[in-house]
Amino acid sequence: MKKANIKVNAAIIVIGNEILSGRTQDINVATISKWLNELGVKLDEVRMIPDIEDSIIKTVNELKAKFNYVFTTGGIGPTHDDITSESISKAFNIKYGYHKEAYSILEKYYGKNKFNEGRKKMAKLPTTATLILNPSSGAPGFIVKNVYCLPGVPSILKSMLTGLNNKIIGGKKIFSKTISIQTVESEIAKPLKNIQNKFKNVEIGSYPFFQLGKIGVSLVIRSTEKKQIDECCKQIVSFIKKEKIKLAKR
Amino acid sequence: MKKANIKVNAAIIVIGNEILSGRTQDINVATISKWLNELGVKLDEVRMIPDIEDSIIKTVNELKAKFNYVFTTGGIGPTHDDITSESISKAFNIKYGYHKEAYSILEKYYGKNKFNEGRKKMAKLPTTATLILNPSSGAPGFIVKNVYCLPGVPSILKSMLTGLNNKIIGGKKIFSKTISIQTVESEIAKPLKNIQNKFKNVEIGSYPFFQLGKIGVSLVIRSTEKKQIDECCKQIVSFIKKEKIKLAKR
Repeated sequence: MKKANIKVNAAIIVIGNEILSGRTQDINVATISKWLNELGVKLDEVRMIPDIEDSIIKTVNELKAKFNYVFTTGGIGPTHDDITSESISKAFNIKYGYHKEAYSILEKYYGKNKFNEGRKKMAKLPTTATLILNPSSGAPGFIVKNVYCLPGVPSILKSMLTGLNNKIIGGKKIFSKTISIQTVESEIAKPLKNIQNKFKNVEIGSYPFFQLGKIGVSLVIRSTEKKQIDECCKQIVSFIKKEKIKLAKR
Repeated sequence: MKKANIKVNAAIIVIGNEILSGRTQDINVATISKWLNELGVKLDEVRMIPDIEDSIIKTVNELKAKFNYVFTTGGIGPTHDDITSESISKAFNIKYGYHKEAYSILEKYYGKNKFNEGRKKMAKLPTTATLILNPSSGAPGFIVKNVYCLPGVPSILKSMLTGLNNKIIGGKKIFSKTISIQTVESEIAKPLKNIQNKFKNVEIGSYPFFQLGKIGVSLVIRSTEKKQIDECCKQIVSFIKKEKIKLAKR
């Protein structure tokens, strides 16, 4: 896997009225984010937008200029509300039409006789796009420059990510440690802030939890510098002991 | 409940590194969206951004000008990574400091002796904000103009929404009907598009599903016009019968 020695970031654009209406619970953001962490790419922003051409074009154009990688999810299926491919073509000013390779993949997948108009629509892409192969259900995703277009169905999206591993050039891997303790946030806010101030390259997150009638706080320590994480955790454990706060099982 | 006779829209800003890192699965978007549907407010955009002051200020300023209502979730707790209240103060150019009413609520909630520095931080808000009462855990949310700031913990957020019902002036209620059928999207794409073209005030969404080994498609028909939905559904049912497609149980 190639490595860039700089910070590499990404954004996700979730395209779909069903997410905004509350009908469908998005789970693709977490899937993509965890996969990006492993590759050393930090997810820095997510936008969820409706199936409206103008919104897609504007959002893609804004984010592709701001982030190293942009991923879109949803809107590449066969129905009238699937308008991602055409919108991406317009955003990049590339001809939208039958993509030869995609057409041939889909024709083979469905068989000539069953390759109807709806299915043929899924071969209509920005014509010069690079395909993202789909091991689950035939219809490919596609890449135009730094924009990666994936489907919305979570199981299919997940199956397509592995094939992208060697296309993403990540930076330093982001490491993470979690310390869960039996206390409430307000009891540890001050010492935690003091420790955070000492570690500029470490990000300490504090997240209250409520589980099986017990309350507690999970401290998540993230950094590209493993040593810094270890040193930071040492200081956290030291103040926890001093304050006689117990560790929590999570 | 007051009603505006126009389209009323909203955006949500999810503030939190834990969502972007994939550690925490957001479920607040769906909760807020469903609640807004009932009030006749359409969620038109969501942004998920990190705990970075500059990002919060820019995003709030952009969205508060574009949408009738903006909701933020997360970042109003007692720890160093909770910077929403201070950032909102800066976005609106309002003094950030102890909010008298919030201070008094929290002091009463914790008791004078246990009202420590961390807890006092939760009374630091834009000083002229209107409070959103918290029936679950004391610490209030707040409103500045059209921006509503809520906590990130889903159960607490949910408990605070009902109290906002009479603060939100919605438009026409958005109705929705779902027809689930035993087919694949590509088989119905063409007739569905024809129907969509006939109903400009209706939004037909087509969502494939995979459940217990069965595949199917849910057609979601949304509109503020109930009659239009009924007429549209009639036409869909008529083509389903013609094509001998069976209904699916969901």
